[in-house]
Amino acid sequence: MPNNSNPIGVFDSGVGGLTVAGALLKRLPQESIVYFGDTARVPYGVKSTATIIEYAEQITAFLLNRRVKMLIVACNSMAAVAIDNIKNLSPYPVLDVIDAGAKLAAQKTLTGRIGIIGTPATINSGAYPQAIHSYKSDCCIHTQACPLFVPLVEEGWLDHIITRLTAQEYLQPLLEKQIDTLVLGCTHYPLLKPLLQEIVGEQVQLIDSADAMAQIAATVLEASGITNTNSTAPQHSFFVTDIPYRLRAVSALALGRVIEDLQLVKLSDIALVNTDDTSRE
Amino acid sequence: MPNNSNPIGVFDSGVGGLTVAGALLKRLPQESIVYFGDTARVPYGVKSTATIIEYAEQITAFLLNRRVKMLIVACNSMAAVAIDNIKNLSPYPVLDVIDAGAKLAAQKTLTGRIGIIGTPATINSGAYPQAIHSYKSDCCIHTQACPLFVPLVEEGWLDHIITRLTAQEYLQPLLEKQIDTLVLGCTHYPLLKPLLQEIVGEQVQLIDSADAMAQIAATVLEASGITNTNSTAPQHSFFVTDIPYRLRAVSALALGRVIEDLQLVKLSDIALVNTDDTSRE
Repeated sequence: MPNNSNPIGVFDSGVGGLTVAGALLKRLPQESIVYFGDTARVPYGVKSTATIIEYAEQITAFLLNRRVKMLIVACNSMAAVAIDNIKNLSPYPVLDVIDAGAKLAAQKTLTGRIGIIGTPATINSGAYPQAIHSYKSDCCIHTQACPLFVPLVEEGWLDHIITRLTAQEYLQPLLEKQIDTLVLGCTHYPLLKPLLQEIVGEQVQLIDSADAMAQIAATVLEASGITNTNSTAPQHSFFVTDIPYRLRAVSALALGRVIEDLQLVKLSDIALVNTDDTSRE
Repeated sequence: MPNNSNPIGVFDSGVGGLTVAGALLKRLPQESIVYFGDTARVPYGVKSTATIIEYAEQITAFLLNRRVKMLIVACNSMAAVAIDNIKNLSPYPVLDVIDAGAKLAAQKTLTGRIGIIGTPATINSGAYPQAIHSYKSDCCIHTQACPLFVPLVEEGWLDHIITRLTAQEYLQPLLEKQIDTLVLGCTHYPLLKPLLQEIVGEQVQLIDSADAMAQIAATVLEASGITNTNSTAPQHSFFVTDIPYRLRAVSALALGRVIEDLQLVKLSDIALVNTDDTSRE
């Protein structure tokens, strides 16, 4: 059994997962968080399955070495292709944004016509349709890869004519299918929410998995008896593999506050983490 | 002295450098090429200087182990920040696209008003203005980072209204400065040449460093006495660190032909290459 005051490990291919960390900080203010963003190798969404699995296993081992009590996979691409590998490595609960988003979409849709947008890796994996069908068998799912959304968000063009045109082009085929629910299947996308809502219209509800994720995390902590009841202030750590161009600006947008204590981890240190050691800790 | 039939090592953060490899194959058909594209960690252009230098040194060591006789840095971001580090590791000539593009721009400009476009890393480094000034002291240089061009090219939107609008937005400030020469400071950009030429107008000449690079390589091989005079057919190898989404399509666009024999290298093997060993080979 882990110590209840141990942190929750949240990981992402970059800084998009900070939207999930932000929702956790808000919903579970007594919990400590260890965030890991693989900013040196982002984006994952256009990489091969084998590579995404390898990186996901490295990050899992790194976080287990930081004595986490729960893991949250905030990267849709990793959740889409590597969730079983991560679960195999972890003795603690593993939650992921795809399951959270899928569950909420299945609950919210009225017509059963659901659209999913995400990176090519997420969309090609078929993970969302599979997860949604596990919660609701009678629904009709339409997907669209949107590879330009992440670079547009990182350029800071959240409400720009070019982002609007790109979104119109990507979303048109989904709108033609008369979806009533649109899952934002990438942690960067919540930053485009106002613009996307405007394009799809009020009759389509957007599913932002960050909030859903925080709610599920609270439920699982409670059910597993590992909610932090210690009254000392929580301690958060943020690890990244690179401190690139625009990192601080995008982080502040995604998390809702500036990260003061960003810690840099060398990729060679991640690659050499021995997963066998973690079970003995 | 290396063997004259040894290959030329060409390296890039991804597949954009294949535009340079393509120009070399055309200009120097008797030379063998070893291409290395770090597709698992692309894009470099938005990473920090320290990280780009570390990766550049790893790739240099890898190529020296493949017994190359010359190195060509086809990635502007690496050339911009890591060229001295690469030269320090290599006993053989090291050429780079920034020097090639700068030299050609300095020769071609009539008014001395030169524009440079590139990734944030390339533009922020100031490497192009510095290189151009070394060839021509009296000129006026204007720069513009274009972080969205690489994802747009990789999406295959080479002649798309969104790419056109993005290019108009990026280029407008340069056009207001009445440049007569525009350096395409990223190996992906030659694929946008027709669209960019249309936007800047016929009075602005575009500098594509791939052709300039091939010409300089021929000159240096000759001057160093290491041109391949062996009559056996050249052998080319293409190494990448990941085989991602759209790799083959973008490769074919950049190189002008499909790569049949792509070889995958694990990042952990690159990171462990010992640069000290290469000098003993």
